[in-house]
Amino acid sequence: MSDEWILLDFWPSMFGSRVRIALAEKGIEFEYREENLVITKSPLLLEMNPVHKLIPVLIHNGKPICESVNIVQYIDEVCRGNNGNSPLLPSDPYQRAQARFWADFIDKKLQVAGMKITWHKSKEELEEGKKEMIYCLKLLEEQLGEKAYFGGEILGYLDVVLGGFCSWFYAYETFGNISMEIECPKLMAWIKRCMKRESFSKSLKEPHKIVDFVVQLRNKMDIYKM
Amino acid sequence: MSDEWILLDFWPSMFGSRVRIALAEKGIEFEYREENLVITKSPLLLEMNPVHKLIPVLIHNGKPICESVNIVQYIDEVCRGNNGNSPLLPSDPYQRAQARFWADFIDKKLQVAGMKITWHKSKEELEEGKKEMIYCLKLLEEQLGEKAYFGGEILGYLDVVLGGFCSWFYAYETFGNISMEIECPKLMAWIKRCMKRESFSKSLKEPHKIVDFVVQLRNKMDIYKM
Repeated sequence: MSDEWILLDFWPSMFGSRVRIALAEKGIEFEYREENLVITKSPLLLEMNPVHKLIPVLIHNGKPICESVNIVQYIDEVCRGNNGNSPLLPSDPYQRAQARFWADFIDKKLQVAGMKITWHKSKEELEEGKKEMIYCLKLLEEQLGEKAYFGGEILGYLDVVLGGFCSWFYAYETFGNISMEIECPKLMAWIKRCMKRESFSKSLKEPHKIVDFVVQLRNKMDIYKM
Repeated sequence: MSDEWILLDFWPSMFGSRVRIALAEKGIEFEYREENLVITKSPLLLEMNPVHKLIPVLIHNGKPICESVNIVQYIDEVCRGNNGNSPLLPSDPYQRAQARFWADFIDKKLQVAGMKITWHKSKEELEEGKKEMIYCLKLLEEQLGEKAYFGGEILGYLDVVLGGFCSWFYAYETFGNISMEIECPKLMAWIKRCMKRESFSKSLKEPHKIVDFVVQLRNKMDIYKM
């Protein structure tokens, strides 16, 4: 019997997107189940992630795995060598520790800066988010350097983790009035390089749909108008 | 030439404590360098962790590794089989994912609840912290079940990650007016079991010193008196 993979996800989620990219990179076919978090949470989500009650949750042969970076590592460990691809995490322990460090940085810093930009409730918060976002992008660009991917010549763990944000960057540019082309041209080239991969293009929504989603939700939540 | 290990740490830190326990479990001798974060940060800390500027930082043969859960995983990967001990992380990918999930839960939930208890600025915040702490402890106790350690019969990754808090629980009991013996007797027995291990007893400060540290720092910061 072949493995059963079910993904509980919500289409705009950068965290869900990571998992979709990782599954696609490993050539794993999965059943996608949309959770509309703006409306309600399904009984299955509450059963599979009773602690955080959040997507994404990957259900592998009935067993749930939660938290996106954790899921990506799980996929990498279970599907080592799948699809003829190299493992996402480097084999060298120091390089692995570095990749995990920057993945954590993305979740602790870049994600928070992005939240401030898209869901800001004051101009001050927006300015703060913008400043923090540029700081994060520049640091990440420094890590990328002249390499094609964070993983080097081949796509790696950090590419997948940051990759989940690829369709959000346009929203950060729009709401934050940031030009990534000016602030971090190498990172911008990395985004374009990633988006040419089928694993990214089929996993991520068009950037303008994310902008529309933010506008609609801001209106619905009646947050201070832009 | 033998490996050089230097740990930049601050004695009360639960995050530093994790690293000390992991190093002791693996039988690694290291140079301990105290960073008194209440006063200032050393140039070496700023150089080795320029992004977060936080302890603990483990410097292995000149190369820094930051963020405690990341450091513990690094030690486990580099020193596999050291000291005749089993690896800390389980070999089964699903069990590994579970261990990482709960480690993340400890940092996202239990640690935050603990901060609210010890550094509360209002009675409401204290009550909130207390409620959250009891919720966290009960969930963790459920994970422990009837096992000797979270890892089963032998000490594992999650034992080390939660182990860093062992000398802090008395402070949570004291400031939060919580009885762990009543709320979570199995977890209390786990603490006692862990503290009998040399890796814990030599790595952790006496619980009453943590209480004194909190009292002194609260006075210094002139936070609302208990």
